[in-house]
Amino acid sequence: MSDVYIIGAGQVPVTREAVQSLREMSATAVTNALKDANVETVGALYIGNMISGRLCSQNQLGAFTAMAAGLRGIEAVSVEAACGSGAAAARWGFMAVSGGFHDSVVVAGIEMMTHMSREETTTALATASDWEAEGALGETFVSLNSKIMSAYMAKYGISGDAFGGFPITAHENACGNPNALFHKRIDNEAYLKSAHINGPLRLFDASPICNGSAALVLGNRKMALAAQRAGKPVVQITASAMGTDSLGLRERHDQLVLEGMRRSVQAAYTQAGVGPDDIDLFELHDAYSIMATLSVEMAGFAEPGKGTWLARDGDIRRDGRIPICTMGGLKARGHPVGASGIYQMVEAYHQLAERAGENQIANARIAMAQNIGGTGATVVTHILERTH
Amino acid sequence: MSDVYIIGAGQVPVTREAVQSLREMSATAVTNALKDANVETVGALYIGNMISGRLCSQNQLGAFTAMAAGLRGIEAVSVEAACGSGAAAARWGFMAVSGGFHDSVVVAGIEMMTHMSREETTTALATASDWEAEGALGETFVSLNSKIMSAYMAKYGISGDAFGGFPITAHENACGNPNALFHKRIDNEAYLKSAHINGPLRLFDASPICNGSAALVLGNRKMALAAQRAGKPVVQITASAMGTDSLGLRERHDQLVLEGMRRSVQAAYTQAGVGPDDIDLFELHDAYSIMATLSVEMAGFAEPGKGTWLARDGDIRRDGRIPICTMGGLKARGHPVGASGIYQMVEAYHQLAERAGENQIANARIAMAQNIGGTGATVVTHILERTH
Repeated sequence: MSDVYIIGAGQVPVTREAVQSLREMSATAVTNALKDANVETVGALYIGNMISGRLCSQNQLGAFTAMAAGLRGIEAVSVEAACGSGAAAARWGFMAVSGGFHDSVVVAGIEMMTHMSREETTTALATASDWEAEGALGETFVSLNSKIMSAYMAKYGISGDAFGGFPITAHENACGNPNALFHKRIDNEAYLKSAHINGPLRLFDASPICNGSAALVLGNRKMALAAQRAGKPVVQITASAMGTDSLGLRERHDQLVLEGMRRSVQAAYTQAGVGPDDIDLFELHDAYSIMATLSVEMAGFAEPGKGTWLARDGDIRRDGRIPICTMGGLKARGHPVGASGIYQMVEAYHQLAERAGENQIANARIAMAQNIGGTGATVVTHILERTH
Repeated sequence: MSDVYIIGAGQVPVTREAVQSLREMSATAVTNALKDANVETVGALYIGNMISGRLCSQNQLGAFTAMAAGLRGIEAVSVEAACGSGAAAARWGFMAVSGGFHDSVVVAGIEMMTHMSREETTTALATASDWEAEGALGETFVSLNSKIMSAYMAKYGISGDAFGGFPITAHENACGNPNALFHKRIDNEAYLKSAHINGPLRLFDASPICNGSAALVLGNRKMALAAQRAGKPVVQITASAMGTDSLGLRERHDQLVLEGMRRSVQAAYTQAGVGPDDIDLFELHDAYSIMATLSVEMAGFAEPGKGTWLARDGDIRRDGRIPICTMGGLKARGHPVGASGIYQMVEAYHQLAERAGENQIANARIAMAQNIGGTGATVVTHILERTH
């Protein structure tokens, strides 16, 4: 198998208004990535998307985006794993290059969600749940995450007020990211004042509905060496691993143990030959504060029940022990669902390439990015390492 | 790269009533395939689906199906390329085994389409078009195929009455396939009597809306040798190739030249080291008679403009020069869109494994299966060869 490298990245700013069409967004992200990688074309394009067929009446986004981005004719497909679609597309691209099927590929993600009513969008998002057992009975991702949060609070005797460290850090980091949706700091007082939208879950515990598209060019060793000769930063993907679990919460053995995440992160550590102590930053899936909490615990950065302490103590800040969501995360950069997994990897790449601007983390060599579909039904983990 | 083999197949009968739920259909097809391959589990599952998120409110069909089929936890993702979704999923599975990422995988396809109104289903299918330029303006797949058919008739001076050979043969072949939707022969008189539903396009030129799911187990050489030792038929996938083009017809250089198909079939021939003369049967994408016509021409079985002659002269019958759609094709086995690409490969496998029952073709050694998304925006071609 060939080594796989990120040799270029592109994105559009995350927005709450539909300033660009689906076609324009995807074309912009992909052409930006191609330009950044200084390549004219690639062998294939894999794009993550969850609900364009329902909200935009546009399917077949692979061929659609290839055409829009000047890549007419190449292999191109759309990949769907709910909010984990982006990283799932990246995994296909990783395999395509690693397996020698293509010298280079584009992996991308896109979602356009703000042009429909909130009710339509919320219902569309609930298709990531077990529809028969959850969505059809009125459950939404807010209510499902509220259930998990309540179970966590009950098990560990923790107050709902304890989760604020995650959104506060995310909002702080987003201020230094020109592509983020929010550029507004929040403090603990603001967090505590924010409305409970379902049980203990506050508005500030939830990521926003928005639009966005991001893309990466992946290349084999030959492509990476050429990029390096041209003075470009190159980052290797040293692990790519997916795990799954039931969609519905009722079928989990324990709502607080995400088995798909356990499989995914353990496999990633094994592939890359690293452990939690080696990770310099962690782009995790903070769609909800409780998901961020479970993620830092499952990845080995905190004992079960102590994930919120990590955030409270500042360990997740950019100068902390394990910086997370360094460009704002899903909470404050925004969560255009099918694109988020690629935004995470774009941001990790920028950190390792020392292109993260005012949010740059010093001496970052190894980053982990983890993207979740549903309440943990699909989890995709990638580990990235700088090679320069 | 490792060789890739089909070591088992499963399917559910194609239906017009929703006799099984989405969960039951996908679980049945996958567990049938696992049982046929005599394996307990696999490394990953890739499932083609186009519109379940819209028509069934169920996304994340990868993890959903893995769970339903007793494969909880494995890598599992859904793949979307409109009506080409099934073969696109097979392509990912091919890469996963060929590249050494997994020893064995399941590739599957599923669609459930008959529980909604005809209007809702027709509109959902139109998301495979360029929505802005076609679907939103009222175009459907019937109207788009009627346009291509009209252009073909005008260019070659051919009557709309000339296309009947394709559906007539499909219906004849479906009579011997217990899993087909239709078990009713039609003759040319019936074809000519069938209603024109759009321009020259008759009802019998169009494939039906229906439900279905099919699955294959793919394995590496070690798995194939084990299967052979156990006396099971084994078929090698010697080519897997995808090509794309614009979604919208207005952006094609020539509506009658499907560039994505040309790329796909030429690449497949090159990979397998074969040409049209070597192909013993061709499971093509006869969603519409005009698509079947263009497919036999592009694959080199007929000169441009003479595709319908092949059907008229009986060359596509099971005892003809190049048997096509030997188990009924999309027209008469049925076209549950995201599943069709896998049904095609299941049927080709059965022919090469000499398990095609009364529809068995004598001495079939090499089969080609070709699956199309939209009006040719995504085309995926696989070549299968028996190894026993």
